[in-house]
Amino acid sequence: MSNHEFYMDLALTNAKTMKGQTDPNPLVGSVIVNDNRIVGIGAHLKAGEPHAEIHALRMAGEAARGGTIYVTLEPCSHHGRTGPCALAIIEAGLKKVVIATLDPNPIVAGNGVKMLEEAGIEVLVGIREEESRKMNEVFNKFIVTQQPFVILKAASTLDGKIASHTLDSKWITSEDARRDVHVLRSENRAILVGVGTVIADDPELTSRIPNGRHPLRIVLDSKLRIPLDAKVVTDNLADTWIFTSKQHDPEKRARLEALGITVIETSGEQRTDIPDVVRILGERSISSLFIEGGGTINAAFLENGLVDKVVLYFAPKLIGGKDAPTFLEGSGFELMKQAVELEDGEFLKIGKDFRFTGYPVKRGV
Amino acid sequence: MSNHEFYMDLALTNAKTMKGQTDPNPLVGSVIVNDNRIVGIGAHLKAGEPHAEIHALRMAGEAARGGTIYVTLEPCSHHGRTGPCALAIIEAGLKKVVIATLDPNPIVAGNGVKMLEEAGIEVLVGIREEESRKMNEVFNKFIVTQQPFVILKAASTLDGKIASHTLDSKWITSEDARRDVHVLRSENRAILVGVGTVIADDPELTSRIPNGRHPLRIVLDSKLRIPLDAKVVTDNLADTWIFTSKQHDPEKRARLEALGITVIETSGEQRTDIPDVVRILGERSISSLFIEGGGTINAAFLENGLVDKVVLYFAPKLIGGKDAPTFLEGSGFELMKQAVELEDGEFLKIGKDFRFTGYPVKRGV
Repeated sequence: MSNHEFYMDLALTNAKTMKGQTDPNPLVGSVIVNDNRIVGIGAHLKAGEPHAEIHALRMAGEAARGGTIYVTLEPCSHHGRTGPCALAIIEAGLKKVVIATLDPNPIVAGNGVKMLEEAGIEVLVGIREEESRKMNEVFNKFIVTQQPFVILKAASTLDGKIASHTLDSKWITSEDARRDVHVLRSENRAILVGVGTVIADDPELTSRIPNGRHPLRIVLDSKLRIPLDAKVVTDNLADTWIFTSKQHDPEKRARLEALGITVIETSGEQRTDIPDVVRILGERSISSLFIEGGGTINAAFLENGLVDKVVLYFAPKLIGGKDAPTFLEGSGFELMKQAVELEDGEFLKIGKDFRFTGYPVKRGV
Repeated sequence: MSNHEFYMDLALTNAKTMKGQTDPNPLVGSVIVNDNRIVGIGAHLKAGEPHAEIHALRMAGEAARGGTIYVTLEPCSHHGRTGPCALAIIEAGLKKVVIATLDPNPIVAGNGVKMLEEAGIEVLVGIREEESRKMNEVFNKFIVTQQPFVILKAASTLDGKIASHTLDSKWITSEDARRDVHVLRSENRAILVGVGTVIADDPELTSRIPNGRHPLRIVLDSKLRIPLDAKVVTDNLADTWIFTSKQHDPEKRARLEALGITVIETSGEQRTDIPDVVRILGERSISSLFIEGGGTINAAFLENGLVDKVVLYFAPKLIGGKDAPTFLEGSGFELMKQAVELEDGEFLKIGKDFRFTGYPVKRGV
């Protein structure tokens, strides 16, 4: 590991620790080094407050002059609420800037580097690039596409079953894994289930961790079959939006709306149109979507190429059953070679269970 | 890590390296230490040749006197082909014996320790016990029960499917994982499939690694539907045994037997009786069985409590499909809490894929 990685790792650690408190801004960390000594550290703490580089520059003061600044994201070049950081770096007399990843935000996207280089500063891009990119995966997608980053989550036995053939599912995973899900719920803007889940389990769909933020609750319900006394309709713990088809009952819709529920009609004639759901959420500034549907909803999102990340919890148990439901149903792909490949996959042990995370390889359309 | 673990680890490393060359004997390693110096190392290399302790004692010579011997398995107390090792240790004047695990072999089972202690030697048992026990898991079961150690192997997508809904399955896992399967085949005495696999794929069921030992090939075939020109019938690469039901066609049986195939009738009226298969294999000295069946055969073994270990290869891909077969079918357990728990589970990355190994928790009958 070179010095570059050593200092960038510190910047990444500081950045990541702010997870959940910088929205809608990305996580950014910064370290200033001069004469082999760290003279300043900084991180972006909150939208509207200074960027990471500004905090680090303030801490360094005159010691920044002639030094090197490490920053996990390209310094901004535009006059936002906190002025262009590239300019501040130039004015502080830094000699070198080491950047993990360029800012995908089209307003910046290379302009920060350009501004620095034009001022005669040496710029190095790409140290811990992958790690920095992943740290802001939600932001990176939303800022470019205005569509939410979609995470498909499932919990199953090792043989892929989410219930027995009698549909018993309590419990698949252990307490530790279920707590982990609540952390992910609090980190995402919206959680999505099908109306079948609401009818069967009447879940709250909230985050039960201390200080956890409740996500927006989204229910796919093509015929508005949702019970008017469902918790997500009545408990007021978080907003609930229902996406439906053209075939829905307008009277039921009016009753739901009277209870404060947002009902959104998609272009689907009989079924809720899935791409519409994602598009509309993006238009309404929902940057991330956590899918906790069953096998049919999961398959619909996956087959439409709308999943950005999968998070699968596997309990180390086997239940079997030709008729037991799996977490991915639908019709499925016809050939094994058409299966959706997942890249950067890794397993992590969580309590007694295992969590897999991976990223579907996007295909040309 | 204490010195005990340090020396025992060396003994374990030497023992494990002999995997596949000691059958039907267990893997055993030994280290002799005197005055903080290793004065002898040994491992059991081949059935009929000296035990690990004898090799180590010979290497140490007079330097063994007053020293400590580390051995991964309890020294034997019986006069076999190489005499009781406990006696050799006593005669060599060792002061202390450190043992990883007692010998489950009922002929030894504590008698070695007893013999040593009666000679006034200090004995310590249990250093790296779990590791030593796992190293000889096949031997440990067979020596006590006279039944084979049964490994259930499957390769699936992450959603548990072994084929698409159109039954396409080429290929699920990558070359690296498939090579790993061939290593396991060579390490096991017998491989088992259903006749459906033979009819559909006409596999060789051999180990394709250099110097790999071909396992005995076992086909479950209740009605003797196996084609007479199937590779496992005609290729003579390894023996093939067919287990059938009472309902089989005697004429077909005679034709198979004329081709050198062993046909064994189980007590099953319509279907091959699975517990019979395991019992009969044990009676015929088959110490390990590697199951490469489909979801139905896998479920039959698991539901009968006959699986000792599961080895699951997961390709990082998702195929979906309500009708796509999974690696564990049958009727399945009725309730999630009845699912078979797997202990000591771990995932290992193999090439692009992941291999899970775990041990079904045995239930009271």
